[in-house]
Amino acid sequence: MKILFANPNTTQAVTDRIAAVARAAASPGTEIVAVTGQTGVPYIATRAEAAIGGRVALELLAEHSPGCDAAVIAAFADPGVGGARELLSIPVIGMAEAAMLTACMLGRRFSIVTFATAMGPWYRECVDYNGLTGRLASIRCVSGGFRDINTVQQEKQALLIEACHRAVQEDEADVVILGGAPLAGLAASIAGQVPVPLVDGVAAAVRQAEVLAALRPSKATAGTFRTPDPKAITGVPDALERLFTRR
Amino acid sequence: MKILFANPNTTQAVTDRIAAVARAAASPGTEIVAVTGQTGVPYIATRAEAAIGGRVALELLAEHSPGCDAAVIAAFADPGVGGARELLSIPVIGMAEAAMLTACMLGRRFSIVTFATAMGPWYRECVDYNGLTGRLASIRCVSGGFRDINTVQQEKQALLIEACHRAVQEDEADVVILGGAPLAGLAASIAGQVPVPLVDGVAAAVRQAEVLAALRPSKATAGTFRTPDPKAITGVPDALERLFTRR
Amino acid sequence: MKILFANPNTTQAVTDRIAAVARAAASPGTEIVAVTGQTGVPYIATRAEAAIGGRVALELLAEHSPGCDAAVIAAFADPGVGGARELLSIPVIGMAEAAMLTACMLGRRFSIVTFATAMGPWYRECVDYNGLTGRLASIRCVSGGFRDINTVQQEKQALLIEACHRAVQEDEADVVILGGAPLAGLAASIAGQVPVPLVDGVAAAVRQAEVLAALRPSKATAGTFRTPDPKAITGVPDALERLFTRR
Amino acid sequence: MKILFANPNTTQAVTDRIAAVARAAASPGTEIVAVTGQTGVPYIATRAEAAIGGRVALELLAEHSPGCDAAVIAAFADPGVGGARELLSIPVIGMAEAAMLTACMLGRRFSIVTFATAMGPWYRECVDYNGLTGRLASIRCVSGGFRDINTVQQEKQALLIEACHRAVQEDEADVVILGGAPLAGLAASIAGQVPVPLVDGVAAAVRQAEVLAALRPSKATAGTFRTPDPKAITGVPDALERLFTRR
Amino acid sequence: MKILFANPNTTQAVTDRIAAVARAAASPGTEIVAVTGQTGVPYIATRAEAAIGGRVALELLAEHSPGCDAAVIAAFADPGVGGARELLSIPVIGMAEAAMLTACMLGRRFSIVTFATAMGPWYRECVDYNGLTGRLASIRCVSGGFRDINTVQQEKQALLIEACHRAVQEDEADVVILGGAPLAGLAASIAGQVPVPLVDGVAAAVRQAEVLAALRPSKATAGTFRTPDPKAITGVPDALERLFTRR
Amino acid sequence: MKILFANPNTTQAVTDRIAAVARAAASPGTEIVAVTGQTGVPYIATRAEAAIGGRVALELLAEHSPGCDAAVIAAFADPGVGGARELLSIPVIGMAEAAMLTACMLGRRFSIVTFATAMGPWYRECVDYNGLTGRLASIRCVSGGFRDINTVQQEKQALLIEACHRAVQEDEADVVILGGAPLAGLAASIAGQVPVPLVDGVAAAVRQAEVLAALRPSKATAGTFRTPDPKAITGVPDALERLFTRR
Repeated sequence: MKILFANPNTTQAVTDRIAAVARAAASPGTEIVAVTGQTGVPYIATRAEAAIGGRVALELLAEHSPGCDAAVIAAFADPGVGGARELLSIPVIGMAEAAMLTACMLGRRFSIVTFATAMGPWYRECVDYNGLTGRLASIRCVSGGFRDINTVQQEKQALLIEACHRAVQEDEADVVILGGAPLAGLAASIAGQVPVPLVDGVAAAVRQAEVLAALRPSKATAGTFRTPDPKAITGVPDALERLFTRR
Repeated sequence: MKILFANPNTTQAVTDRIAAVARAAASPGTEIVAVTGQTGVPYIATRAEAAIGGRVALELLAEHSPGCDAAVIAAFADPGVGGARELLSIPVIGMAEAAMLTACMLGRRFSIVTFATAMGPWYRECVDYNGLTGRLASIRCVSGGFRDINTVQQEKQALLIEACHRAVQEDEADVVILGGAPLAGLAASIAGQVPVPLVDGVAAAVRQAEVLAALRPSKATAGTFRTPDPKAITGVPDALERLFTRR
Repeated sequence: MKILFANPNTTQAVTDRIAAVARAAASPGTEIVAVTGQTGVPYIATRAEAAIGGRVALELLAEHSPGCDAAVIAAFADPGVGGARELLSIPVIGMAEAAMLTACMLGRRFSIVTFATAMGPWYRECVDYNGLTGRLASIRCVSGGFRDINTVQQEKQALLIEACHRAVQEDEADVVILGGAPLAGLAASIAGQVPVPLVDGVAAAVRQAEVLAALRPSKATAGTFRTPDPKAITGVPDALERLFTRR
Repeated sequence: MKILFANPNTTQAVTDRIAAVARAAASPGTEIVAVTGQTGVPYIATRAEAAIGGRVALELLAEHSPGCDAAVIAAFADPGVGGARELLSIPVIGMAEAAMLTACMLGRRFSIVTFATAMGPWYRECVDYNGLTGRLASIRCVSGGFRDINTVQQEKQALLIEACHRAVQEDEADVVILGGAPLAGLAASIAGQVPVPLVDGVAAAVRQAEVLAALRPSKATAGTFRTPDPKAITGVPDALERLFTRR
Repeated sequence: MKILFANPNTTQAVTDRIAAVARAAASPGTEIVAVTGQTGVPYIATRAEAAIGGRVALELLAEHSPGCDAAVIAAFADPGVGGARELLSIPVIGMAEAAMLTACMLGRRFSIVTFATAMGPWYRECVDYNGLTGRLASIRCVSGGFRDINTVQQEKQALLIEACHRAVQEDEADVVILGGAPLAGLAASIAGQVPVPLVDGVAAAVRQAEVLAALRPSKATAGTFRTPDPKAITGVPDALERLFTRR
Repeated sequence: MKILFANPNTTQAVTDRIAAVARAAASPGTEIVAVTGQTGVPYIATRAEAAIGGRVALELLAEHSPGCDAAVIAAFADPGVGGARELLSIPVIGMAEAAMLTACMLGRRFSIVTFATAMGPWYRECVDYNGLTGRLASIRCVSGGFRDINTVQQEKQALLIEACHRAVQEDEADVVILGGAPLAGLAASIAGQVPVPLVDGVAAAVRQAEVLAALRPSKATAGTFRTPDPKAITGVPDALERLFTRR
């Protein structure tokens, strides 16, 4: 089984981290293909950057999904996931979506803990979009800037653990999701220091992608997730153009 | 990996069907243990029967979960799942829960199609309990009685397919869940006749149980899903008593 | 008029307290029958214990409801109430349900104040189940353990009053419900020390049970609260078996 | 015990009907005082008329509540109930509120059936205001005009029964409320012809008013339902002016 | 274009302030007609006072709306707006409604900041009534009494600015509405001291009233906002009586 | 005042229609600048196409907004509006958002009527995203294909009017929005044939853009709608790159 992780950011080191965590979390025999945005921003942190990233995600999926069994949009608030689910014939999931739905099976209310204040309200939109606000205990963002997106999980570790504790004690979280691709792998390191189950977005995503690939759901031929009618399009890379035009 | 399916009904034939579908849907190397209620009702179809079944589920899990990596409550509206999640140290999921969360990754709105009118409102409570009413397109129940719970999926097949079509066309369902253990396996047979992805509760449950087992979430030591404090209890089988008393 | 209070716990002293408060709050001429679980746990405080208690409640109602005009499930989050409402031909209400609906007539938002932290999230599920989350100001639990369930209301009185004050001042509660059978009767003692109306679950329940008995609603003969079809059942006491089998 | 029914309409015949049904439904020993608006409209059927009726209700309550133990605003969507609850020191409830909260104890979802199309959307606002939309199965209005508000329940009886049946079969109502003071008493007549419990607004209101009077909740001294600070007011009858000015 | 501001309070100075702010905020060529309640209370701060004010608003609109192109109910929680929208053939909006809908176009979540604690819960009902609770970040009320309603915005300015800051930092407000007619004009003065856009209710209302007048929506002839059927009414001023009786 | 209409589709004729309707609906003195996507699809009808269109909208706004006072994203489900609101210092609104918020001031519940079935579920996401699902009566899509996007409003006029009538009669809509840029201008033509107010997205948008421009809200300097921190970006046109990099 081959799972595509499409990182719609341009930072190769984050893709490398995602790939490593995905490989460690995958079933035996699952192959991970991890690709990085060739255009866009180093790290998506706003709605505007997500609008750019949504298209980058579609480009990456158009080019790299052939031959894969399922695909993951490997940025936390899942830019482009709805459109990708229409266009592709293989299952596509978002990393936040996978993390939240997995968390729902581990308790009643989940919190999302992340490393930068800016992301709180944007993540909240993602929870709303998924219709899961009733299951959300809180979103807790560690305050202050950080030096390097690649090492932010080490740099902020103590603060992140503290935020997890407060989510449990003050917000009644039964489960905590560590949000954002740069935190991939952290859950495994700090699980012993947090008193509720932790969900790692990348680990949840790879396993959920495997589930969907294994269940072999048929592609919709009716409703809004059917393959869209062919449409002329300009200004996009060839692979994406072919997806739209169905040629 | 060993997954326990606890059927809180007393009908061995339904358990056999569940076990067969689960084995067919499981990853290579996953062992399925399927057990049947020794007391209770042949098939749960009301809230009262679910109250009986909830305790039966706890009894089965207490006795059979040792040595398993995850457990599934194998009756559609998940009787006892919250309590089981507290008591056990391995992950426990319900069949409806697994089906609904899986459906959420395949489209925006799901319908549940089932074989008996009586179950509609009770299933609706289950959707509400899971906080997923915003994702529900409809619950459609095929009307009329049926001859035999073991063959109801053949008997009602044409009507079930028609209900799936109406869910797509009239209710804007992107995905359809076939609800109720007696329909296990039907999704695979009729997938070609329904224009959106179908979710089989048993298949979704076995795969989601594998996900949770693989992620090895730590058992909560705080919050309401931590192992409850030891409690004296009377009138329950020994294995369940030991779970409550922690002796 | 005869009202049955079914305490699904095994602690006779709590039943005695419930009976005393119910008798004090009842209309002249109302007879209170209060019964205690013969099996189960001393005091329900978790979902798992509620799953046990739900069945105990059905057993008690099956045995003791004949000759009664209405019944109350006398444990705060109302274990088994949905099933009991299906099975019995007399009205059945839960203590939490009665308290919350009564509170709704005394103000716009209510808080629930109770004596043990563990119960917060479980009570929240009960509020959700009743569709009253929009009317909930807060659930406030007094922290710390307690010595004796029978005297917890004296032991924690000062802390409970403080929690009521905070519910009013910080959470904008218009009414406060004192939650949990062990607090029965406390509302009357401390009413003068709290600046909003207090609702006692037992007092509300006995009065609401009288209302339903007096209105003599017909038993549903259609829909999911009609008497369920006869169903074979094993492993339950005779009286409950007769309710299920309709023999 | 003395219960005031304040009919904010000017039709004495409707008040007479309300009084008769209330007396029949009340506990022995309960005295019913029923008063009619001296100004306003014959029958409230719109938001504009409710705005007039809300003030009429306050006037009636100001004048007639002294000596009463509880009061009912005897028009279905409860004009003025929030303000009355602030101003008076005795409990005040609305007829729709009492009916809906009573219905919640008889099933999971209720429908409201009424005799004129115009009232549907306005009743829906009332359900929303009470935070009970999640418990609402449907509002069904019998179409067509009617000859006389005083005999509309006889005139439309067959259509109303049919609407109740459709509420049960098509909308999954577990309970039906007959909405609007002109339908007072109808529930008792047609109960045998509808397969789920019926709730009569007047009967529910008198019994709920008794409950609140019996529980003797203390008047709030904090929060928004405390007695408002004295306020100068002009243009209202003396009794109401005294309530506002606290002189 | 002529816009009517109907202040349902009796304080002329507040009307004067409203008129001045409205004139400053209006388009060139828009004429502002501002009228004051001849009866009622000096300043609406409770549900009871709003019930009085709702009728005063209808009286003012009946008398002064002829010749106007749109009307504004110039008190924050919009007393009488639903009824006015039925009765009048020109557009009618409430000040809170205009402020909230305008705020929705400036960010995702808004807070309302106001000058008196009493108004929080009543404003919350207004947000609920408008179906905008999902967009509300918080309602923050400055505590403590005030000397004079006419100068409260100067007196409380520092505290109001602080409340705005806390709304942004603690509640994640993207926009802040300054609530209550006595704060009209304050937004312009303190905009530089608050880090998110401020919405002034009067300024928003005059501009939104212009929008509706300019769009010339046809008056509904079906549904509940059609002109109500003629209805006899007593006890109201002539102009209002004519609106009800359509004579 | 200068208002930018950014049509993120490539069909100039639709832009021309939008510009004409906007000019007719604007205040005297308002200048309309209408621009068309240079890349992308002829007409956005799916989530995937909206993901492309969201970026096209940002490109158009980056290039053409300098010198404008407010901007409108002139495609119905508002692709890119959140990101645009972050990036730009002038107000930005979406056409659907403007239409819905305007509709809220004309009645309690609105329907959206549009010309192609495919758009229903996608529009529903837009309503959800705006938190206005509680105000939505229905979305009604005329079935069947159409010959030409430029004349679809004439071609489907009778069916669209019929859909409006059904929205009023069957769904209790108080107001109807005609959804989709190709229907711009239709509301004015058919207003006399529909019994409730109609809202034209373009007309509402131009007027709401004027409101926001006139109110001169300060650009947020805190919270998620503050100007984002400078961010390196590649693969986008120069004007958009400058917006991201703040150089």
